[in-house]
Amino acid sequence: MNETLKTIAGRYSCRSFSGKTLSDADLQTIADAGLAAPSGMNRRHWQIIVVKNKTLLSELETEGLRVMSEYPDKTTYDRIMSRGGKLFYDAPVMIFIAVKEAFPKGAELIDLGIAAQNIALAATSLGIDNCICGLVAFAFAGGKAEEFKRKLKFQNGYECGLCVLLGYADEPGTPRAIDKNKLTFID
Amino acid sequence: MNETLKTIAGRYSCRSFSGKTLSDADLQTIADAGLAAPSGMNRRHWQIIVVKNKTLLSELETEGLRVMSEYPDKTTYDRIMSRGGKLFYDAPVMIFIAVKEAFPKGAELIDLGIAAQNIALAATSLGIDNCICGLVAFAFAGGKAEEFKRKLKFQNGYECGLCVLLGYADEPGTPRAIDKNKLTFID
Repeated sequence: MNETLKTIAGRYSCRSFSGKTLSDADLQTIADAGLAAPSGMNRRHWQIIVVKNKTLLSELETEGLRVMSEYPDKTTYDRIMSRGGKLFYDAPVMIFIAVKEAFPKGAELIDLGIAAQNIALAATSLGIDNCICGLVAFAFAGGKAEEFKRKLKFQNGYECGLCVLLGYADEPGTPRAIDKNKLTFID
Repeated sequence: MNETLKTIAGRYSCRSFSGKTLSDADLQTIADAGLAAPSGMNRRHWQIIVVKNKTLLSELETEGLRVMSEYPDKTTYDRIMSRGGKLFYDAPVMIFIAVKEAFPKGAELIDLGIAAQNIALAATSLGIDNCICGLVAFAFAGGKAEEFKRKLKFQNGYECGLCVLLGYADEPGTPRAIDKNKLTFID
């Protein structure tokens, strides 16, 4: 296995971060990997926002948990609570990816995933633990969307996409086993 | 830059493949990278299908172009025609990613993008040129969807997602420049 394949196989979703934060140089490198993501017709209908501000991270988490707790379907909320009641697992940094408004979204969401994985793999390659997290969307579903868009400096016409949490794990984690039943060959 | 970062920065979308095909060992390695992709709540609502069958690739291309040519909006068709009239650019192999049926799709599409980028980066790391291609969806939009689902061995409840074209470039390509205007820091 070459180094890239090792990075791909070794990446796992970290859900418990220590207090240690990242260097600005690593953050820039990881953000640049996001910018290098391909997108449909090279439209780049995303905006990559590096968030180090702890107050803002805390506000997003508090609002996200509040909105989640009021949803009729408690499945997601109960899962989060059973894992310690943290939406962002104490990650010191978040790379937020905003997405261009569209309804329904198609290629925009595929492109979000592509950019998120570039970020996750760049982080992994630098020894930085990470987790792609769609739950941040709850923070935008309860009346504070405009406030958060302003604080996150969304460009005009963009809305919440997803985020990648970054930091260093409390304890080393391991990747999940792959499922060979998901693979088919047509010779 | 470590090797993974070089792979991320060096990947580009190849749109002209030579006749040279991939080894089965490389194909398996690349497919495994797709299987290692994270997905929302680990649902893995995708199926990774390695297609080497030239007849089937040709049928998909012919039908896709036919459907595209009959669309009222000719933008995509004209773009493809101006590039040589190939939907798959003579790629010898396609990794098709089927996606679980859902309407509207949300996390499923993000997860498609994540898996596609794992495949693209694994290929790039092995010196194999590639292109993430959503245009294969046209082949499923004109009445032959059930036939193609059967030939591609879709699992029950899955439908067309996207594909990653694989092969060796006719001429080496270069990545597009990144756009720093797409990056914002919130300190």
